[in-house]
Amino acid sequence: MARVKLELEYDGGAYVGWQVQDNGPSVQAVVEAALATLHGGAAISVVVAGRTDAGVHARGQVVAFTEPTPLPLKAYARGLNSVLPKDVAVVGASHVADDFDPRRHSKGKRYRYTISNASHPSPLLRRFAWEIYAPLDVDAMRAAAPALLGKHDFSAFRAADCQAATAVREVRKIVIDGMSGGLITLDFEGTAFLKHMVRNLTGTLVHVGRGKQPVAWVAQVLAGRDRTAAGPTAPAHGLCLEAVFYG
Amino acid sequence: MARVKLELEYDGGAYVGWQVQDNGPSVQAVVEAALATLHGGAAISVVVAGRTDAGVHARGQVVAFTEPTPLPLKAYARGLNSVLPKDVAVVGASHVADDFDPRRHSKGKRYRYTISNASHPSPLLRRFAWEIYAPLDVDAMRAAAPALLGKHDFSAFRAADCQAATAVREVRKIVIDGMSGGLITLDFEGTAFLKHMVRNLTGTLVHVGRGKQPVAWVAQVLAGRDRTAAGPTAPAHGLCLEAVFYG
Repeated sequence: MARVKLELEYDGGAYVGWQVQDNGPSVQAVVEAALATLHGGAAISVVVAGRTDAGVHARGQVVAFTEPTPLPLKAYARGLNSVLPKDVAVVGASHVADDFDPRRHSKGKRYRYTISNASHPSPLLRRFAWEIYAPLDVDAMRAAAPALLGKHDFSAFRAADCQAATAVREVRKIVIDGMSGGLITLDFEGTAFLKHMVRNLTGTLVHVGRGKQPVAWVAQVLAGRDRTAAGPTAPAHGLCLEAVFYG
Repeated sequence: MARVKLELEYDGGAYVGWQVQDNGPSVQAVVEAALATLHGGAAISVVVAGRTDAGVHARGQVVAFTEPTPLPLKAYARGLNSVLPKDVAVVGASHVADDFDPRRHSKGKRYRYTISNASHPSPLLRRFAWEIYAPLDVDAMRAAAPALLGKHDFSAFRAADCQAATAVREVRKIVIDGMSGGLITLDFEGTAFLKHMVRNLTGTLVHVGRGKQPVAWVAQVLAGRDRTAAGPTAPAHGLCLEAVFYG
């Protein structure tokens, strides 16, 4: 009855999010159904590192579960992929301690937000990038980002229905890259993130990039702790959970 | 009655290819229908630079047509995108000479073939990359590529039903990049390409990358001019027409 850790990649486009919900298919339901198939119908509950929202993608989501009957690891690393739909895949499997909790034991996470900043739509990027046709000043966004680094009360950037007990989080790193063809990526690394936090941070930096607010405004929004003062929530489909870090 | 050149980006996943066919939706039909809508129902035929196969994508396809009634360029650069489906977009529009022919006047084309070389499926790349789970030796592929450069009879790499009068083509450049996460890109630049040529060149280089044939084999296949001697045709969904060059 070993405990197993799985790393998952998924295209969140067809899902209501990670968590099982009444209103449509969830990634969790698909993964638990595949595990049940592998285990002859036994009900298996998985614990997740980060509950991604509807439409959000993952390249390195982490889940764990306890096996009802022991199977070799390759049953998960390979066999599970033949049972899962094409938009969800196991990219790694390993044995972990019996008490391993992917969320509580996580030391940090990295998210990437992708923007397509061209004057026209991009059929090739549309599923994975926020298309912004107005020109963005990437240097201004980069200048505004350091104000968000460190340990702060991020109340200004949490969702209205965020249920975390405290809004204090630590953002360790923000890297903003502008590439040819108008592709812009924003990498956020931190201990943990509040609900919608990365999308609200992105929407706020984009406000600065569009020249709607000056660079110094971002520090004011953070200090004000007022959600209504921040920029708009960036759309879900541009966001990807890249990695979860452990000790 | 000006002649207009359009640059198109499209996700070819839902199409039977560029050309109008009986067996399903084509990119050409979608573009001509959108132009007709813009022109109050007038039938408009477009000429294309490169007829992409079923499932092949484009970032820089070029088409031209003669306007039945004059419209400002922004009607094409912007207006057309609100009529086109989300998987096809105009990314550039300009006026050209009355005799402009996108195919005949082209000085060259660049295609990119994308491979995901990881031990597992990739839900995020699956629509745009050939997933090869066996490890590829990128250095061997790179060593084999120069044999394909220059002006040659590429009969070994043309489709059985290719209707070109001659199989002589010039490949100017092949750049193979291996990136983190197992992403491999092969960029092919040449005057023009035969039907399935880029996919057959890719399949042949992959044969070398998988160690099924030595580096020197590629030159032998080219010299032999025998299609059945080359590697397998790489799948369509990994291919993208990146750019068409003009004088």
